[in-house]
Amino acid sequence: MNGREGSMESFWDIYNGYKKLVDSYISNHLNSLQGPTLLRDASSHLILSGGKRIRPVLTLAVTDLLEGDVRHAIPAASAIEYLHNFTLIHDDIMDRDEFRRGVKTTHIVYGESLAILAGDYLFSMVFGTISRNYEGEEARLLTYLLSEASENICMGQAMDINPDRYVRDEEEYLNMIYLKTASLIEASTASGAVLAGRHEDISTFKEFGNYIGIAFQIADDILGLIGDPKITGKPVGNDIRNGKRTLPVLYSLKRMDDSEREMFYSVFGKMDADDIEVKNVIDLIVDKGGVDYSRNLMRRYADRAIDILSRYDESETRDFLIKLVEFIVSREK
Amino acid sequence: MNGREGSMESFWDIYNGYKKLVDSYISNHLNSLQGPTLLRDASSHLILSGGKRIRPVLTLAVTDLLEGDVRHAIPAASAIEYLHNFTLIHDDIMDRDEFRRGVKTTHIVYGESLAILAGDYLFSMVFGTISRNYEGEEARLLTYLLSEASENICMGQAMDINPDRYVRDEEEYLNMIYLKTASLIEASTASGAVLAGRHEDISTFKEFGNYIGIAFQIADDILGLIGDPKITGKPVGNDIRNGKRTLPVLYSLKRMDDSEREMFYSVFGKMDADDIEVKNVIDLIVDKGGVDYSRNLMRRYADRAIDILSRYDESETRDFLIKLVEFIVSREK
Repeated sequence: MNGREGSMESFWDIYNGYKKLVDSYISNHLNSLQGPTLLRDASSHLILSGGKRIRPVLTLAVTDLLEGDVRHAIPAASAIEYLHNFTLIHDDIMDRDEFRRGVKTTHIVYGESLAILAGDYLFSMVFGTISRNYEGEEARLLTYLLSEASENICMGQAMDINPDRYVRDEEEYLNMIYLKTASLIEASTASGAVLAGRHEDISTFKEFGNYIGIAFQIADDILGLIGDPKITGKPVGNDIRNGKRTLPVLYSLKRMDDSEREMFYSVFGKMDADDIEVKNVIDLIVDKGGVDYSRNLMRRYADRAIDILSRYDESETRDFLIKLVEFIVSREK
Repeated sequence: MNGREGSMESFWDIYNGYKKLVDSYISNHLNSLQGPTLLRDASSHLILSGGKRIRPVLTLAVTDLLEGDVRHAIPAASAIEYLHNFTLIHDDIMDRDEFRRGVKTTHIVYGESLAILAGDYLFSMVFGTISRNYEGEEARLLTYLLSEASENICMGQAMDINPDRYVRDEEEYLNMIYLKTASLIEASTASGAVLAGRHEDISTFKEFGNYIGIAFQIADDILGLIGDPKITGKPVGNDIRNGKRTLPVLYSLKRMDDSEREMFYSVFGKMDADDIEVKNVIDLIVDKGGVDYSRNLMRRYADRAIDILSRYDESETRDFLIKLVEFIVSREK
């Protein structure tokens, strides 16, 4: 084993250590819920089926970096995962997606009414968990960060499902992914500062999470275009057939001539496009530099996030967070 | 004009005074929202189409009774109305209802995806409004009360859409309507105690709201059965065709003989039942005493609520709250 592998192994040890704290809180909490079992089962279905838990891991790691008590931060970190899963359940209904994390989506298994309710219930538990586990101003600040993120996610999703109206160029795209994706990651990292009692660091860690979040979404967009379907679990060209105006698409669209653009629009957003048509469109986007451009922009956001960490003293947790940023921009799923 | 009319007029003056404070906060707030107009319009559609505002009026009146600052309570009272409207928008999707308050429901006007999002956005604004307008422990207590109510509403709604499994007798019925309806009214009145800074009165006003809430829902059930459709705005026998296991239904079912029960089930829950069949079922329920029994139970809950008020000194606000309870159990829509 060379040094790099050893260091990555210790990265995953730390990652999984944080993840386990959150996973066990979530499963204990969900199993202890009273009330109709149908609702509990529908609410637990997605969240207990897996997931990377990147957001709560970020919360715990930032708490750790700022010398807060990681155990104290577990309920809030778990609440952030509830919030994320609530948005996934409702998004899957809107997008009519049938699979996620390799399992059937909640509305497919439990029907749409219970899936709407399961999302609402998880969303209620976000603020229930905060207000039952924290006091006074700490509870208020966490509620503020998470409700602001929720408002932003709704705005971003409204834009994302109406791309012709709201995602027409790179500026609108960056605004949309800030709202839809980065704002919750921002709230996750800023919550770490709140939970460590370091109110003077909240705005710094908002910025940190914002940069990570933008990089995270651009990475997703690249994977949605040229990721290995065996690893991502999503069919090749899914985003093309769905007509998603991602960054590589927006960039390359501006650089196409009329005949290329005509070919592009004959495939883009067509659910029944065949694999060869989709591959031609992907090749065109790559040729026009859409993927390279997106990778460069993603790298710039990752570097900004890492720059912020360099303001803090070297520590095992700081190294872990730097590696976490690198993982986010180099992941294959 | 006799004395009673005069007194009722002053009741409505006070009611509308409170209501106006909430209505103007809500319309100013919704109009000031940034972000995609589609989402703002979809979120505003139902809440700006009317509504009695009973919950925020209760919050402001309890704040007033306990000598708190009514102006201070307005954002929280408005947040409670957001919470109520969020549940209505999502319920209407689940129940496939096309009209409410005389206007088309949100999912009919804006489509289901935006209606899900509009509900989620209002729900986010509940906690956004609390955490932006209140501080420390007051914010936490309000968040606690409203998230607990939200969790309860989800549980109650899950039961209500699966009545064969969860609403089989009076005890289960009372539990379901507590969760679905009374818990938010409980949170509304308890919030009044929080907002008046009278933490020692929170549990008393939880109890007060609980009693009002149960009485409110029983009144709804009676109106759903024998209300005047021209006043309620709902078709005669709606609840019968929808197969809703309300209190009058549960009570009279136990008192039917086999042939009556057979007739009942040949109509109950059948959306295509004709008016004569529905009328026969309603008559049967009335004959078996289901409506009288429900009225008596509703009255007992109203009396318990009024008993609680009698612990407080006589005042204009106390008189107002007593009349509000009487209005809730005697309303025609």
